[in-house]
Amino acid sequence: MTSFARTGDRAANQLRPVRITRHYTIHAEGSVLIEFGNTKVLCTASVEEKVPPHKRGSGEGWVTAEYGMLPRSTHTRSDREAARGKQSGRTQEIQRLIGRSLRAVFDLKALGERTIQLDCDVIQADGGTRTAAITGAFVAAQDAVNGLLAAGKLAASPITAPVAAISVGIVQGTPLLDLEYVEDVDCDTDMNVVMTGAGHYVEVQGTAEGVAFTRAEMDQLLALAEKGISELVTLQQQTLSK
Amino acid sequence: MTSFARTGDRAANQLRPVRITRHYTIHAEGSVLIEFGNTKVLCTASVEEKVPPHKRGSGEGWVTAEYGMLPRSTHTRSDREAARGKQSGRTQEIQRLIGRSLRAVFDLKALGERTIQLDCDVIQADGGTRTAAITGAFVAAQDAVNGLLAAGKLAASPITAPVAAISVGIVQGTPLLDLEYVEDVDCDTDMNVVMTGAGHYVEVQGTAEGVAFTRAEMDQLLALAEKGISELVTLQQQTLSK
Amino acid sequence: MTSFARTGDRAANQLRPVRITRHYTIHAEGSVLIEFGNTKVLCTASVEEKVPPHKRGSGEGWVTAEYGMLPRSTHTRSDREAARGKQSGRTQEIQRLIGRSLRAVFDLKALGERTIQLDCDVIQADGGTRTAAITGAFVAAQDAVNGLLAAGKLAASPITAPVAAISVGIVQGTPLLDLEYVEDVDCDTDMNVVMTGAGHYVEVQGTAEGVAFTRAEMDQLLALAEKGISELVTLQQQTLSK
Amino acid sequence: MTSFARTGDRAANQLRPVRITRHYTIHAEGSVLIEFGNTKVLCTASVEEKVPPHKRGSGEGWVTAEYGMLPRSTHTRSDREAARGKQSGRTQEIQRLIGRSLRAVFDLKALGERTIQLDCDVIQADGGTRTAAITGAFVAAQDAVNGLLAAGKLAASPITAPVAAISVGIVQGTPLLDLEYVEDVDCDTDMNVVMTGAGHYVEVQGTAEGVAFTRAEMDQLLALAEKGISELVTLQQQTLSK
Amino acid sequence: MTSFARTGDRAANQLRPVRITRHYTIHAEGSVLIEFGNTKVLCTASVEEKVPPHKRGSGEGWVTAEYGMLPRSTHTRSDREAARGKQSGRTQEIQRLIGRSLRAVFDLKALGERTIQLDCDVIQADGGTRTAAITGAFVAAQDAVNGLLAAGKLAASPITAPVAAISVGIVQGTPLLDLEYVEDVDCDTDMNVVMTGAGHYVEVQGTAEGVAFTRAEMDQLLALAEKGISELVTLQQQTLSK
Amino acid sequence: MTSFARTGDRAANQLRPVRITRHYTIHAEGSVLIEFGNTKVLCTASVEEKVPPHKRGSGEGWVTAEYGMLPRSTHTRSDREAARGKQSGRTQEIQRLIGRSLRAVFDLKALGERTIQLDCDVIQADGGTRTAAITGAFVAAQDAVNGLLAAGKLAASPITAPVAAISVGIVQGTPLLDLEYVEDVDCDTDMNVVMTGAGHYVEVQGTAEGVAFTRAEMDQLLALAEKGISELVTLQQQTLSK
Repeated sequence: MTSFARTGDRAANQLRPVRITRHYTIHAEGSVLIEFGNTKVLCTASVEEKVPPHKRGSGEGWVTAEYGMLPRSTHTRSDREAARGKQSGRTQEIQRLIGRSLRAVFDLKALGERTIQLDCDVIQADGGTRTAAITGAFVAAQDAVNGLLAAGKLAASPITAPVAAISVGIVQGTPLLDLEYVEDVDCDTDMNVVMTGAGHYVEVQGTAEGVAFTRAEMDQLLALAEKGISELVTLQQQTLSK
Repeated sequence: MTSFARTGDRAANQLRPVRITRHYTIHAEGSVLIEFGNTKVLCTASVEEKVPPHKRGSGEGWVTAEYGMLPRSTHTRSDREAARGKQSGRTQEIQRLIGRSLRAVFDLKALGERTIQLDCDVIQADGGTRTAAITGAFVAAQDAVNGLLAAGKLAASPITAPVAAISVGIVQGTPLLDLEYVEDVDCDTDMNVVMTGAGHYVEVQGTAEGVAFTRAEMDQLLALAEKGISELVTLQQQTLSK
Repeated sequence: MTSFARTGDRAANQLRPVRITRHYTIHAEGSVLIEFGNTKVLCTASVEEKVPPHKRGSGEGWVTAEYGMLPRSTHTRSDREAARGKQSGRTQEIQRLIGRSLRAVFDLKALGERTIQLDCDVIQADGGTRTAAITGAFVAAQDAVNGLLAAGKLAASPITAPVAAISVGIVQGTPLLDLEYVEDVDCDTDMNVVMTGAGHYVEVQGTAEGVAFTRAEMDQLLALAEKGISELVTLQQQTLSK
Repeated sequence: MTSFARTGDRAANQLRPVRITRHYTIHAEGSVLIEFGNTKVLCTASVEEKVPPHKRGSGEGWVTAEYGMLPRSTHTRSDREAARGKQSGRTQEIQRLIGRSLRAVFDLKALGERTIQLDCDVIQADGGTRTAAITGAFVAAQDAVNGLLAAGKLAASPITAPVAAISVGIVQGTPLLDLEYVEDVDCDTDMNVVMTGAGHYVEVQGTAEGVAFTRAEMDQLLALAEKGISELVTLQQQTLSK
Repeated sequence: MTSFARTGDRAANQLRPVRITRHYTIHAEGSVLIEFGNTKVLCTASVEEKVPPHKRGSGEGWVTAEYGMLPRSTHTRSDREAARGKQSGRTQEIQRLIGRSLRAVFDLKALGERTIQLDCDVIQADGGTRTAAITGAFVAAQDAVNGLLAAGKLAASPITAPVAAISVGIVQGTPLLDLEYVEDVDCDTDMNVVMTGAGHYVEVQGTAEGVAFTRAEMDQLLALAEKGISELVTLQQQTLSK
Repeated sequence: MTSFARTGDRAANQLRPVRITRHYTIHAEGSVLIEFGNTKVLCTASVEEKVPPHKRGSGEGWVTAEYGMLPRSTHTRSDREAARGKQSGRTQEIQRLIGRSLRAVFDLKALGERTIQLDCDVIQADGGTRTAAITGAFVAAQDAVNGLLAAGKLAASPITAPVAAISVGIVQGTPLLDLEYVEDVDCDTDMNVVMTGAGHYVEVQGTAEGVAFTRAEMDQLLALAEKGISELVTLQQQTLSK
């Protein structure tokens, strides 16, 4: 790895300062503010004692997610999706990704016929909102599950593993961990990786924004992501043990 | 006024603790978190160097607002309006009210052909979100105007007066200032009042939720509102002078 | 009050000629054409032996309203909301106001699990359509209730009081009762007042279109409205007794 | 023709009483209430000095129509299309038919680059609303054109012929002219015919609701329609000459 | 009939080469590609063991249709209706026509409480897509019914007759059978005719695109359509007997 | 690799029979039917001499894609997206993927200010529709570019490399190339890979449907994909050279 200069002299393989604040709001069963540098995402987990139609009567529960950005979470104001009357393709893609990532570590049978609805709303954006959302949503979901266990509604946890996510990319030839916004717009290859605490892959989404990338580059990016996610999983556990 | 017991021994004519935090997020020209007890609304002001079609070529600017609630800002989760594909009647009513209230203290000619877009997003709801939004949006708008003045884009401020708002209501026969959620659901009459710093009315919206109210009751409510708004205007000015 | 000249030498505190025609169309359980000068609104009341989801099994009924303007009821043609695919914020605000106003004089328990659906459609607009709609809708609702009583479906009337509404405003410094269109576009302050037959308030919605208004001005406006509504309630009763 | 008994002893080949009231509302350039027995449709013609995109710069004008039913114009209440957020297939079919029928008697070149927008709103429905709409819209369009001629905006009329429409059908084996609602729901074949004053066809839309119909039946229906439309064209001319 | 020159020396009363391919795709209960020259429409029939709400509990089934054009089935690309978020008025008109035409030859009682859903998708358009759709959908529906008979789910066929459709029109004064696209855009009168195998009418929809047409012209067009449909019904039977 | 039995004794690393038919429909500038076994996707490329707003005046062109499934392309009928009024999240994800993949091999500067619009419509689905769409869309795009070159509208090709795509997955522990539907629903890990002719990655999207996958498994899948795409690129070139 070479000499690309990052904000605050961050190393190429270094995460931004990550902060996870539990119980950020008072109504939700799980409520987490997660910050990666200037990126701030509020992740709430709501427990509903019902399931969507395709799960009714199945004995299984459901875990799903929605994602949104406040209109001025971004450098220039984005249209409010509620006012435009529809969610963009990007929004739908992201919320489907969050939902799949969380379901990957849930035993829906063990959850019983209830839904955990995750809402990930970006308060301030500076790159990596979707991976921050996944990492924070896991903590919110764990808090919601802990509440169900404490209330005796669940006998055992339906969560099978921790899950966290990070973005990696190649900027000016240098593979970087945890891209902030100015790096993201400048990158040739952008990859979002979701992994379990055991180091197995839940999702890998790599896109060549400029030139196509080689197998060697992919291997470098996957190694960076593995390092970052391992640190994030540790941080999640520390936060949850408080 | 009688013996209705309020949270934290609050007096009938007392505001909840109000906190106004400027520069809450980094991208917007004005960004204010306003808290009335547990109610928390993020108000951003975005300056755009263009105007909507009905103002093009008029030499006048525009001030407008949008309002939203995060799905889990409420006791039980509300549907995400972006996912449902439309804003509710309530949302539209509120954002029209915020827009009118702010325009009432703007000289649009003096603003020039630019738009100040106010976004009021409820992070946590405990009653009085619309009046908190107006009170906070004024501070965000002032910060945005100050930025235009500092940048030399405006020679003089287009803001003609401060504006603030509060809710009042009659609960179990007692007129109360600044209703929190449990009071709001229980009230017979609910009134939202918007006033300028000079003590003049911009909006009065009174609704009998239960039995119709008398002129004497209205007078009591208006007096409470006047007291509360006067305190809020003072707080706005203190905050802005920091 | 001073020398503002009104159409047809109308006094500042005088209503336009008001005409209420019952049984205007043949299918609805209540059907009223109400005219305030050139403003003409068709108000129908439809009885449906079912309630919306939030009232099912409650033993209570529901009263609700919808509002629309024919595209060429106005000076220049307005877009047809059905063709645009959504109701404007103004339309939603008005129909919510009509619904609340009528519910304020209904004992929903006494109505039983049925719905009275009010449809207020503006045939010709010349100011004051929302207050005409409320005043006319009450007569239509009374006719519908009378039909239920006559058919033995109700033993006693669920209507607890008459309700009527009027607009008032300040034009060139003069407080006026019952604004027609040219007065409405020119006014500084516009207030819609809804009162019961007993002279109590159901709704007060005052808006400063230009400069904010003082408490003294509000008092003048409320007095004008009280006079006008008292006359309207008398007219409603005369019409219903025919 | 045989012994089918119609309301008011109407003969099988007899129109209902038809009444055409011009200048029914005050704002539109043409405004006509047309009544076929209990069917009442308000037809307004609005002149706009612009054309839709596909006609811009063509030197030609445009004539188009929209159609709607008030929610309680029908026996039981129909959903308001503006509230549902879309026009039904039936509504779209009808308004396209009205538009084509009127354009068939307009020389768009002679109209110049302006639009005549026809709005046909059903106040009360008892069968035959679309044919009443066409017949009434022609009178409203003629009034709008007369206004343009009087104002010197047009040198010669762009209207090339009168146009009118009627429904015919076979009920219990009997061909009938001008079906009212109870006949319409009971009919086997339903045909809407639009003709010019010269007795030529603009539109023929025949539908077998029950069993398919024979050529002999179609000939009977076309003869009935021709008789009815001839009477309607005479009535249009009488009304316009007042 | 006179000297209008058609593609490939086709006679005025001659169909284009018509080809009907059954079992065109593998999943649907009936799947037919129908070609009229360059017009190609894929018609599938899907059997669903449920009925729409208005038929539930009636003991009757339902037959309905949807229609679409692939975006580049046309000379220049048309917007994708799914992307625009609504079906055009033309699309709705056509799918309602197809549905009515097929229902005209179905005994819904005999079908039982199940739905036959017809999907007609235009792969390539060169005029006459709606009439091709009806003619092809009948074959697909027959295949679906044959499947139900073979599976013992129906004891007797609910189909009462064959149904087919063709377009006819007057181009430069010449009545023509089966218009292709260049004839269609050039025609003065355009008529779509739907008939049963017995030669009775299900639908007749004639429109004067330019000048209104006379009764004599209509008679010529109806004769052409009768000839064409008779040939199509023969072809349908030959195809089904393979 | 082990003993998983595939349809037709296909080897784990073997593609289904792939067929690419150019000039499948007559109107589009490029029109390709691509078949992977029973999966059939029609890919058309339309050239439009304009660009979307974000490219206007940039001197650059645009390449974009839309995707749809015919309602009965699937085992059981899917709702028609045009009738539902919106495209699903899945549809939007896929069409964004196709658009990105094609843009990755286009020099938009060299294309000039024009748009190549790719429409990928699934006629019959049996797994792998999105990767078939990308592979077929490339051939359609090449045909469209060849047309522009032949017409002298382009001096040199803006296409920088071939692009093709394939799905791979792990079913019952066995890594498989080119999943058909029954394999897809049964798989633990599903990966779509898009590569250029030079063997570089454009997109990698791997998802754990069941248990998370290891790095070793990912390496096996990437190797399979590389083999398959290499064969597809060869086939594209053979087809295009005919």
